Amino acid sequence: MRMYDLIIKKRNGEELSTEEINYFVDGYTKGSIPDYQVSSLLMAIYFQKMNMRETADLTMAMVHSGDILDLSKIDGVKVDKHSTGGVGDTTTLVLTPMVAALGIPVAKMSGRGLGHTGGTIDKLESFDGFSVEITEEKFIENVNTKKIAIMGQTADLAPADKKLYALRDVTGTVDNISLISSSIMSKKIAAGADAIVLDVKVGDGAFMKSYEDAKKLAEAMVSIGKNVGRNTVAVISDMDQPLGLAIGNALEVKEALDTLSGKGPKDLLELCLALGSNMVVLAGKAENVEEAKAMLLKTIEDGSAIQKLKEFVAAQGGNAEQVTNPELLAKAKFVYEVKSDIEGYVSKINSENIGLVAMELGAGRATKEDSIDLAVGIVLNKKRGDKVAKGDVLAYIHADDEAKIEKAAAGIVSNYKISETYEDNIPLIYDVIR
Amino acid sequence: MRMYDLIIKKRNGEELSTEEINYFVDGYTKGSIPDYQVSSLLMAIYFQKMNMRETADLTMAMVHSGDILDLSKIDGVKVDKHSTGGVGDTTTLVLTPMVAALGIPVAKMSGRGLGHTGGTIDKLESFDGFSVEITEEKFIENVNTKKIAIMGQTADLAPADKKLYALRDVTGTVDNISLISSSIMSKKIAAGADAIVLDVKVGDGAFMKSYEDAKKLAEAMVSIGKNVGRNTVAVISDMDQPLGLAIGNALEVKEALDTLSGKGPKDLLELCLALGSNMVVLAGKAENVEEAKAMLLKTIEDGSAIQKLKEFVAAQGGNAEQVTNPELLAKAKFVYEVKSDIEGYVSKINSENIGLVAMELGAGRATKEDSIDLAVGIVLNKKRGDKVAKGDVLAYIHADDEAKIEKAAAGIVSNYKISETYEDNIPLIYDVIR
Repeated sequence: MRMYDLIIKKRNGEELSTEEINYFVDGYTKGSIPDYQVSSLLMAIYFQKMNMRETADLTMAMVHSGDILDLSKIDGVKVDKHSTGGVGDTTTLVLTPMVAALGIPVAKMSGRGLGHTGGTIDKLESFDGFSVEITEEKFIENVNTKKIAIMGQTADLAPADKKLYALRDVTGTVDNISLISSSIMSKKIAAGADAIVLDVKVGDGAFMKSYEDAKKLAEAMVSIGKNVGRNTVAVISDMDQPLGLAIGNALEVKEALDTLSGKGPKDLLELCLALGSNMVVLAGKAENVEEAKAMLLKTIEDGSAIQKLKEFVAAQGGNAEQVTNPELLAKAKFVYEVKSDIEGYVSKINSENIGLVAMELGAGRATKEDSIDLAVGIVLNKKRGDKVAKGDVLAYIHADDEAKIEKAAAGIVSNYKISETYEDNIPLIYDVIR
Repeated sequence: MRMYDLIIKKRNGEELSTEEINYFVDGYTKGSIPDYQVSSLLMAIYFQKMNMRETADLTMAMVHSGDILDLSKIDGVKVDKHSTGGVGDTTTLVLTPMVAALGIPVAKMSGRGLGHTGGTIDKLESFDGFSVEITEEKFIENVNTKKIAIMGQTADLAPADKKLYALRDVTGTVDNISLISSSIMSKKIAAGADAIVLDVKVGDGAFMKSYEDAKKLAEAMVSIGKNVGRNTVAVISDMDQPLGLAIGNALEVKEALDTLSGKGPKDLLELCLALGSNMVVLAGKAENVEEAKAMLLKTIEDGSAIQKLKEFVAAQGGNAEQVTNPELLAKAKFVYEVKSDIEGYVSKINSENIGLVAMELGAGRATKEDSIDLAVGIVLNKKRGDKVAKGDVLAYIHADDEAKIEKAAAGIVSNYKISETYEDNIPLIYDVIR
């Protein structure tokens, strides 16, 4: 088999066989096939596409390029959740204790990631002493006894995806449904998921800007799941404004605690229920999503979800007191009110730019080497459709560096669009693909 | 400027600016832009094409990537000739002395090349003592005094083309009219040509298999020429059977001498007149091709062409006696008659495969390191449309290694197609593009 022939085949619009896909993924991972041939194939894939069979084969070839987490010692169906990424997305912190409180195993391997705010691990480290540095044995034991554990990524999961993504990123070959969907799914499958619930974000602040594209991506991932024996459900949700109110690590933890106590933002709770109910159904603990939603709501009402979170934080060395008393979480030195100098209705909040403002305050990393300030960030006070009077607070800046406030405030104001009238026709949840 | 943006632009079907094309060719030549980004751009060009302005800019960017031969000290219009490559193509050896005999300067820089037979330099070295190792000063002096000189490639001409071609060759991005035409034209322009006559071959034995593709390539090259101020004419000619009868170095030299003495194969002479007459017109020495053809034919009749070749060979250290007496050229030890065991009409000769048989006899190089046996090769006795009786000689094998004869004979027989009837409807010259 020669890489050259694979390039020509795909370039001419033909289908690559399973063996051919395995050959190129394996050869690229091992370094026997050079970057320049792979980037040329990727561009040919961009133009000629891959069908579902090829996409599923690509996914599994990437899964087999590295370690595959063996979660067979954990009882029950392991359902993982993945978001394609948005701004102020605190769903994981809310969802996982609720689901675990229902006796469904939550076994997550997480990373730190780049972006507007830290990854799930960074956020959890807002609890003093919390650590993801646990052994695989301890991890499995915790899931079996407490139904929830999160560990840092130690295993070498889907290295082919990592290498391919880095190449796509610099060769203009990111935007292809098959390549995007196989990249996401390969990591989840390698991390040991039996079933997967996906949160596919759509809007200005998301990777997918239009509903049509988001739907295609959702369908592709659900189809991969079916093809490789992992039940998958995708929820398509709005990212045309930040989710919830908080953007920043400890701020989002506080918002998650509020939500688990029944006092959180409505949109955050609604999305958590949509995602969580599908997890519960896939885990076989409810007949349908309505039943599952009721079960999840009950974990908030009876306090079992917040109790589960306390248990989880304590089991991984964190200060569980901070769960019951969020006032003990890290606080920024300065809280500044960003006020509106015009009146009207909020018709748009540019999520991506607001996220970047938070990152510049220190809430996120621009490069791997950057450190994160857990306390800083933004808390929105007005969202899309809200009425605004002159002098009303649009958002609060939480900063540790006073010098950064002015620029942040200007950034927030310029990314709020306030109109005379506004009719909200953007749903929070567009569609669920099964 | 970032290479990434250029890839995205072309991928999305936009036009690259002159500055952008210069940026990527320059960066790639210097090594600041990596292979994997260039191969990705090349594949995007494959799908989205380049318009004529972009193609002309790419050509000139490659011309300026290295040395440009300065032929300004040579009087007159320097017209170069280029063939896209065929089997048994002896036109350069016939054409150049005829054109020089008319007082038109022939200043050629030639290479050795890979293929069925050697390059022009190898063929000329069939004259004992002939050398292309002359200084640039001597080269220019010879052209000014004798109107003809050929030197080996010393200058670093169009290094960007060399690097890009090597990359295209392994990334499935050869087959694009803009990339092919700019590659050919950049080398000719860097070699100092004022005007260019192209022989675009079409057929089984050529790079372009169909007339439509050959015409597109011819039109693209003529258009580049116009865009960059080099008058260019392209002759589209048949390569569905070898040109002339001889395939092999000394054998082709002998055929060229026969043709210059008025005793050569009709098709070879016809093509030489078609190409040569356009060279004469471009050089401003004739009003039209009919007049030019008559002038060229006269150089054969009055012996001035063969006299010019003698002068040229002697001036570069070769044995001019071999020009008047071709019997003195290198001869193979064995000459074997390949006979037909069926009767009918020759309806097809697979040029490419016949060329490979000659190469295996030692007439050409498969790799740069191979040495060439100047004496060996094939001389056809029957061509397309010829009647063949059982026992008639199809071709003669000239071999120095008796052990190679049997396989070569089988190779020749299997690549002659003999049918009961044959109606020849393939012209030697399809079209002339100006």
